[in-house]
Amino acid sequence: MLPRITLLATGGTIASQQTDQGLMPLTTAREILDFMPSLSQLADITARDVFMLDSSNIQPEEWQQLAQAVLEAAKGADGIVITHGTDTMAYTASALSFMLLGIDIPVVFTGSQLPLTHPHSDAPGNLREAFAMALSQRKGVYIAFQHKVMYGTRAVKMRTLGFDAFDSINMPPIGFFDADGLHLHQVQDACAQAEIDNPLEIDSKVFLLKMMPGTDPEIFDHILRAGYRGLVLEAFGLGGLHYIRRNLIDKLRHISEQGLITLVTTQCLYEKADFNIYEVGKGFQTPGIYGAHDMTTEAAVTKLMWALGDIEKRQAYLTKCLAHEMNEKTTP
Amino acid sequence: MLPRITLLATGGTIASQQTDQGLMPLTTAREILDFMPSLSQLADITARDVFMLDSSNIQPEEWQQLAQAVLEAAKGADGIVITHGTDTMAYTASALSFMLLGIDIPVVFTGSQLPLTHPHSDAPGNLREAFAMALSQRKGVYIAFQHKVMYGTRAVKMRTLGFDAFDSINMPPIGFFDADGLHLHQVQDACAQAEIDNPLEIDSKVFLLKMMPGTDPEIFDHILRAGYRGLVLEAFGLGGLHYIRRNLIDKLRHISEQGLITLVTTQCLYEKADFNIYEVGKGFQTPGIYGAHDMTTEAAVTKLMWALGDIEKRQAYLTKCLAHEMNEKTTP
Repeated sequence: MLPRITLLATGGTIASQQTDQGLMPLTTAREILDFMPSLSQLADITARDVFMLDSSNIQPEEWQQLAQAVLEAAKGADGIVITHGTDTMAYTASALSFMLLGIDIPVVFTGSQLPLTHPHSDAPGNLREAFAMALSQRKGVYIAFQHKVMYGTRAVKMRTLGFDAFDSINMPPIGFFDADGLHLHQVQDACAQAEIDNPLEIDSKVFLLKMMPGTDPEIFDHILRAGYRGLVLEAFGLGGLHYIRRNLIDKLRHISEQGLITLVTTQCLYEKADFNIYEVGKGFQTPGIYGAHDMTTEAAVTKLMWALGDIEKRQAYLTKCLAHEMNEKTTP
Repeated sequence: MLPRITLLATGGTIASQQTDQGLMPLTTAREILDFMPSLSQLADITARDVFMLDSSNIQPEEWQQLAQAVLEAAKGADGIVITHGTDTMAYTASALSFMLLGIDIPVVFTGSQLPLTHPHSDAPGNLREAFAMALSQRKGVYIAFQHKVMYGTRAVKMRTLGFDAFDSINMPPIGFFDADGLHLHQVQDACAQAEIDNPLEIDSKVFLLKMMPGTDPEIFDHILRAGYRGLVLEAFGLGGLHYIRRNLIDKLRHISEQGLITLVTTQCLYEKADFNIYEVGKGFQTPGIYGAHDMTTEAAVTKLMWALGDIEKRQAYLTKCLAHEMNEKTTP
């Protein structure tokens, strides 16, 4: 008997067709399978359209809808493949990594840089590799793209046009494909085991602020006034903020005292944030301000939204590895 | 007679010393030279301290002060080396690339990931390489770091700890060092020639907004209300924004009609933004909204601040290459 795979389609370039308004997602899950008959030799496949969106339009509400669809499909599947636009795939895969903590089958995102029906499309290869990963019995949430398999919490979209669109940041890909098929590395699982109530509950009232030289501290007042509950702050280098003339450090401390939860990450792509090294970072050691360590911004945003879904119970996990999103050994 | 180099010191890790409050910049330009006596064999060196700051504290006012110091020093120098913290070096180098358009000597930024006096410091090597570049007679603003020379408008700080801290984005480094010294590539100069009045005049009222799934359009109202004149928007992929439930596209069009100037870039590190491909990007074709093409965020922020310094005369340059910051061939 063939293993059972469910294909959940959500739109994206992979499903796009040319229209007068530009490329629009129109191809259904069933049409994707019809285009790729070889997949049916690998698995007994169920197709379902969850929604049909350009991924620039996929937001926290869609994450919940998709996570619900995964939980339903998981009852009758050995693995799940999700086709998704590349623009926000890293955010969705990271969000679902937290919302589906403990899922006991592979959930594998893929997509493409050109539509499935384009003669040069990368979609057929990416679909085949995503199916192979979904058949691997390795539990968790992944992105399979252009011969690499990455944790959903570690992927970042790096290229707007290149086929090798995603990299795994601060952790090597956990697997790769070559002419001999899929090779999966053994990964030491150092993540916390967590029993989570209502894991799909999240709160999207998070502000993402990337610093620049001269950032006006007034934005922190606005963030508080406008009712945001969380802030992801992309600071400079290891976690620096300016404080001469425009005192961001005092202002950040002030809004934290008012109850805002902040994750401080770095705008450098690689390596960790660490407040303890420079004098400009020392002011951060205030309750409610957490270092994001070596998390990507995508992971920090989605983890904070997830933590805010039940902050009393989940706040302690902000500084613990839950879904391979951070290396706790880098914790200051 | 030895060529004349002026060393302008601004602080940074390279000048830092351990204190009770963490690392603080304390080492002067003269002390840097005293630590590196071999440099005096290469050039007749003048040392000047412009300011003494962690670069997280360097803001547009310091760019103006530093640009003024470069203009003064350039009267009596064949090349200029600027020591600077790494955290915002890419912003400062990019800002000075626009403020010093037409400078006819090399202006070379460098710094280090460990203080000059640390036994494992990368500072001595970086200083030697910056001096070699400053002696090259190649006019323009550069960063020399860890065996690479990059245009100031193309550099991005990639690593918080690794010695190879900077990459040149969407353009190869223009030079490299090996055991045979400095090798400079011939670069085709496709940039516009511009006669600029008051080139040091800039306006820092720019907001940098990095999108995330679920970004609340209310932030655009705030940006307008708070008196910002410019916006750099890090969109998804080729330039996508969400418009279902939270309609960012209508809101962006609205604030543009009120006079805000927007540069839309991508949060992907590599490759260009291009509105013309996807339906979610098509709404951008509104006066006042410009694609940043393949500019880095650092270049987009500094170019927009510079353009706002005299918007009537400089607006047309937003879509033209001035200082190697964009490849016009990628213009949609």
